[in-house]
Amino acid sequence: MTEAAVLGFGTVGSGVVEVIDRNQAAIRVQFPEGIHVKYILDLRSFPDSPYADKVVHDINVIREDPEIRIVCETMGGMEPAFSFTKSFLEKGVSVCTSNKELVAAHGPELIALAKANRCSYLFEASVGGGIPLLRTIESSLVQERITAVYGILNGTTNYILTKMAREGADFDATLKEAQDKGYAERNPESDIEGHDTARKIAILTSLVSGSTFRYEDVYCEGITKITAADFKYAKTLGMSVKLLGVSRRDPETLEFHVLTAPFLVSCEHPLYSVNDVFNGVFIHGNMVDDLMLYGRGAGKYPTASAVVSDVIDCASHDGRWITRRWDPEVIEPGDRLSEVRRFFVRTDADSEEAARKAFPGLTVVTADGMEGEFAFVTDRVTEGEFEGKAAGLKLRNRIRFLN
Amino acid sequence: MTEAAVLGFGTVGSGVVEVIDRNQAAIRVQFPEGIHVKYILDLRSFPDSPYADKVVHDINVIREDPEIRIVCETMGGMEPAFSFTKSFLEKGVSVCTSNKELVAAHGPELIALAKANRCSYLFEASVGGGIPLLRTIESSLVQERITAVYGILNGTTNYILTKMAREGADFDATLKEAQDKGYAERNPESDIEGHDTARKIAILTSLVSGSTFRYEDVYCEGITKITAADFKYAKTLGMSVKLLGVSRRDPETLEFHVLTAPFLVSCEHPLYSVNDVFNGVFIHGNMVDDLMLYGRGAGKYPTASAVVSDVIDCASHDGRWITRRWDPEVIEPGDRLSEVRRFFVRTDADSEEAARKAFPGLTVVTADGMEGEFAFVTDRVTEGEFEGKAAGLKLRNRIRFLN
Repeated sequence: MTEAAVLGFGTVGSGVVEVIDRNQAAIRVQFPEGIHVKYILDLRSFPDSPYADKVVHDINVIREDPEIRIVCETMGGMEPAFSFTKSFLEKGVSVCTSNKELVAAHGPELIALAKANRCSYLFEASVGGGIPLLRTIESSLVQERITAVYGILNGTTNYILTKMAREGADFDATLKEAQDKGYAERNPESDIEGHDTARKIAILTSLVSGSTFRYEDVYCEGITKITAADFKYAKTLGMSVKLLGVSRRDPETLEFHVLTAPFLVSCEHPLYSVNDVFNGVFIHGNMVDDLMLYGRGAGKYPTASAVVSDVIDCASHDGRWITRRWDPEVIEPGDRLSEVRRFFVRTDADSEEAARKAFPGLTVVTADGMEGEFAFVTDRVTEGEFEGKAAGLKLRNRIRFLN
Repeated sequence: MTEAAVLGFGTVGSGVVEVIDRNQAAIRVQFPEGIHVKYILDLRSFPDSPYADKVVHDINVIREDPEIRIVCETMGGMEPAFSFTKSFLEKGVSVCTSNKELVAAHGPELIALAKANRCSYLFEASVGGGIPLLRTIESSLVQERITAVYGILNGTTNYILTKMAREGADFDATLKEAQDKGYAERNPESDIEGHDTARKIAILTSLVSGSTFRYEDVYCEGITKITAADFKYAKTLGMSVKLLGVSRRDPETLEFHVLTAPFLVSCEHPLYSVNDVFNGVFIHGNMVDDLMLYGRGAGKYPTASAVVSDVIDCASHDGRWITRRWDPEVIEPGDRLSEVRRFFVRTDADSEEAARKAFPGLTVVTADGMEGEFAFVTDRVTEGEFEGKAAGLKLRNRIRFLN
């Protein structure tokens, strides 16, 4: 029996304890000695929980128990999660986490610390919830040169955008409803401004490159400016609006171009039917071509399942370090303004002449009830060209095309 | 350097040699000593190939070279692939293959032989081409009780059905065009009668159950009876017709219900946008809920990429057996006639009264230009009930609903 401890008995932490308990028979098929949760660390007590007798309030009880081989850090946030994680890795105890803030900020440092102490720091649950995304990149695609990773990485914003698309509702009303239902947090900034997606695409870019792509270097736009009007036009285009994290490696410069922004996605593209709280991520390799992984990007049991997959991996490799290619060396982001794409643009009606002059190859787009403005799709232009040309227009909104 | 040999220099085999050659730098990141192809076995010579000097015509050259640690069997078919595979495993040389016929027929025997000789028999490429499907089940979902696996597992039939859906064409004409383009074989029976999908869903069911689900026990219908008329109705239903392999574990009896047949798939379902030669597979776990993996189910480089992922796995585990849960014990299939679902049904016009009597909850379906027949969707019924009731009707076609 491999002894484990869970730090933080919130949604994900309690899910981890339940998955290990309820699916122990399945786990023992692959790992016959089994996994046992000996301690749960939380400031609170849970007298009515079937796991009440495992709860401790002092981290030192866990630190000083030599039986503990694996710790699940499901506290979230930077401190004390960071200090706790370091203290366990320094003792050669592996740590598995769903804490994307900590991974995005200190991933390479914690991976190096694990390696130095012959244990592992794994974080499958930090990106894409229950989707086995990182393990696929690290263990099934070793033979690939990965040239792009992109997709829907945040369930809250995808829920909001899906609802706006289906019901024609406006952003503010839909956000409020999502908050009332518990799908969006009271302070939704990290989700709706794209920061959560930025952290995740930075983690993915780092794993693909083997170096550190800092999440502060991800160009980031959220969904707060997306309106019901945008969805009307999207519908006539046979498209929908999705918040994507996009990481593309330039085949010539080998630089990574990484951004988070709303994109128009065609109904022919598999990401179009990634709806509600689901996530979907495309990986493009030079040999395997396109792969997509789809699943629940959040939620108690899916996220806990991903944490437990890491626990089993650690238990099967006790005393050995599981490779995660993520060096501390920081890579410079590629020049966003050189990226080529098409834009959907809405301007005031009196900008039509200027727009036709600036973008001679434009395609006009119309939608019912959207008189009094001029909307169009540009030819392929660089972001820099677009910004220069659009500066002379009375812009209402502009949304990037995927492909 | 780990020395490998490739048996069969056809499409997949030559792809394997190229992937290992061209992506050697990527491979060395994870496996620093690298992989080297020392021999290629083929009856033919390839004087113009850059790999001509590796080609040998005698299997004994490879068998007798103690440097060879891994063999890629990309010959296909039963013999001599089966004998060759056994002879290498008996010597402790791992074998990686794309040969689904051999895996479906002798998988558990070859896995046991590998285990007894401390080497591995891996077959990622045998199901879903480039999609890392088996490794996901075996290494990322150990903590799950998998209750269903289903999806599009054959690229040829998906290409044909996608074309019929888009162009309103008939089956025979579309098959001929697919053959002319090389997407379908001259003898297409294995694909269009569903046998290829049946083999793959049998392999998946075996891996999920840990026992052997014989592919002869998969209930199997192909796509030869699907017509342009069916697609007209599907369109009015907001659906499309897809050939699926479906494996469902009954939560009470724990029996596996496994079949291959055309299904009507709603445009809301992510399998709807799995088009052309792509494959898409859903996995349902009791904790992670729905996952889908999507990618190229065939083709030289995607399939070769999957073979090479196995090669790297073997190289990283030389002298150890990589667990594949697949015992020779045969499991009995669940009773197909007890499965509950809805059916889309087309009958002669004069069967309307009998149909309404047999299926009082039916929903009538109409489509342009389809006068002179009666079409409807049944309520949820068992397959057995349906067969009994439909026996009294002049049936033109019936297609199962997914969900």
